[in-house]
Amino acid sequence: MPPALPDLTGDVVDLTAAICDIPSVSDDERALADAVEASLRPVGHLEVLRDGDALVARTDLGRPRRVIIAGHIDTVPVAGNLPTWRASAEDGTDELWGRGTVDMKGGVAVALHLAARLAAPRWDVTWVFYDHEEVAAEANGLGRLARHHPDWLAGDLALLGEPTGGGIEGGCNGTLRADVVATGRTAHSARAWRGVNAVHAAGEILDRLRSYRPREVEVDGLSYREGMNAVRITGGIASNMIPDRCVVTVNYRFAPSLSPSDAEAHVRELFDGFEVEVTDLAGGARPGLEDPLAAEFVAAVTAETGAEPVAKQGWTDVARFAELGVPAVNFGPGDPLLAHADDERCPVRQIRSCAAALEAWLT
Amino acid sequence: MPPALPDLTGDVVDLTAAICDIPSVSDDERALADAVEASLRPVGHLEVLRDGDALVARTDLGRPRRVIIAGHIDTVPVAGNLPTWRASAEDGTDELWGRGTVDMKGGVAVALHLAARLAAPRWDVTWVFYDHEEVAAEANGLGRLARHHPDWLAGDLALLGEPTGGGIEGGCNGTLRADVVATGRTAHSARAWRGVNAVHAAGEILDRLRSYRPREVEVDGLSYREGMNAVRITGGIASNMIPDRCVVTVNYRFAPSLSPSDAEAHVRELFDGFEVEVTDLAGGARPGLEDPLAAEFVAAVTAETGAEPVAKQGWTDVARFAELGVPAVNFGPGDPLLAHADDERCPVRQIRSCAAALEAWLT
Repeated sequence: MPPALPDLTGDVVDLTAAICDIPSVSDDERALADAVEASLRPVGHLEVLRDGDALVARTDLGRPRRVIIAGHIDTVPVAGNLPTWRASAEDGTDELWGRGTVDMKGGVAVALHLAARLAAPRWDVTWVFYDHEEVAAEANGLGRLARHHPDWLAGDLALLGEPTGGGIEGGCNGTLRADVVATGRTAHSARAWRGVNAVHAAGEILDRLRSYRPREVEVDGLSYREGMNAVRITGGIASNMIPDRCVVTVNYRFAPSLSPSDAEAHVRELFDGFEVEVTDLAGGARPGLEDPLAAEFVAAVTAETGAEPVAKQGWTDVARFAELGVPAVNFGPGDPLLAHADDERCPVRQIRSCAAALEAWLT
Repeated sequence: MPPALPDLTGDVVDLTAAICDIPSVSDDERALADAVEASLRPVGHLEVLRDGDALVARTDLGRPRRVIIAGHIDTVPVAGNLPTWRASAEDGTDELWGRGTVDMKGGVAVALHLAARLAAPRWDVTWVFYDHEEVAAEANGLGRLARHHPDWLAGDLALLGEPTGGGIEGGCNGTLRADVVATGRTAHSARAWRGVNAVHAAGEILDRLRSYRPREVEVDGLSYREGMNAVRITGGIASNMIPDRCVVTVNYRFAPSLSPSDAEAHVRELFDGFEVEVTDLAGGARPGLEDPLAAEFVAAVTAETGAEPVAKQGWTDVARFAELGVPAVNFGPGDPLLAHADDERCPVRQIRSCAAALEAWLT
């Protein structure tokens, strides 16, 4: 008998605990996916679809607009922190402890709870529960859905339930990684004048990085901070040889107003004269907060929490929606700094306030 | 029956071939050391001493001055290039091919030949044949002799028979290696402004290296070229993290007029403001060519070959004599660029001319 979830329309914090207590480390999501499917199938107002261990449940009420609310069901490995337990912090905050409480079974519980509860939301809703977010990008379940069934992900705004402390973090920056290469000619270091030192030549690359002033770019009302940084440098053959090659790995975080090809052109221009090999490139996502649909969502969250939306600086799966042309925001319970931590824990009131804000917006 | 050498006073090129044909890769010098000892013991004008696989043979004629003539008997691993063979180059040069012909059994043969042949040299001579030169410095046989029996190495001038193409290369530069460290504070590269990038900070280290103008220093009439070079650089934790540490390994080659502590002070001053850890430091050796003893040697070699002495830029075992207060020069047959090469080979006339020049000087 596979593990089962409690009544989805019951207490959302109890539901969070139950979801956490079915371990689902990446590659081992089957039991939880089965439990989610078994809970959703009987819900009359939802059409339920499955691809591998990803589930999609959607209303079809003929509303003029459609919202996608998505979350991943996998976690990083358990660190002796399951089953979950409740405890009070020193300041009296009631917290749910354990793997997944932050990243991101709180967000999954909020979505499952409302999927079952809201038979007639103001807009059609597509609820997405997917696998393999915590591992290599190629395995990502949301990416797989986008390839296999892009129509399942069609909509006007997407909400990703990643932890944001219960506030709204809109869109995300893009990210580019490139190897910028300085070359030289090797020689014995006792006769250095016969060679050309590639590490010395890389000083010019570092000079350009040091004098670079990253932009702060407003997109759809949110402010994105860019960044241009060396994340790695390697050069040298042996302790008595002049290096003939030095590689500076540069990471450019770029505002979602730039396309990936804009970003690449900018990096190539900055390092003009050096060999530049782009090794990783993923566009950002616009928050789309100027759309009235999103503006009402912001208003609902602000009414519940008092927090104004901010830009998401790091790259997240919202960018997968951006690739499909769907603006997207991050919105979920839990402090993102506690994600993956051994002491992962979430204030239960954040789980409740996220559910309340979403329900207020959708009804 | 251990392998034996031919009559030492016979043809010096045949003797070179015979010495090469007793393989003596580092750590496996015993058979050759035994053969050398067996050849030297019967020579009436020599006192023969042994320490491990190093042999010292010396005259004791009460001459006012003493010359040391030294060479290592080990080689790098054989590369299918033994036994030796003779062949003519395209230009008709008669060459002896095989492992050790350049580095440095030609020099060893010249020394053994003259050790046996010169019963009454103008100066007392200490002939040194030592082991473990081609491996880690700690194992070096000349270093071991200097520790166990410094009196065996006493003298006024040392000649090391390393390949110099038959010319004189005097003294050697010193060498210093130091890790120069730039530090920072790590952060996720999506929020780079929370960190301090250590690789960017290392740009200042590279700037100082790039603007450094190495000196050319005249010592005892020879010109030593210094060098200050990054030989390695490493920094970076992960492709999405701001590096908190970047290490530039710098190699300073310094003229023998500088002491090791002078050299260290110079490097610390150059990289003032950065952490500097010296990981390797060996002083150079003055050539001592202004001593009349050495001046006569130079004259003898120049008369034989027409070549003027030059400074040795790389560090060699002559520096071990310098530590004992003995000026030293490098002088031996063979092109140093062919040392360790699979096509190692030596013009036989260089072996003969080295022997002739040394004999002319010593008689």
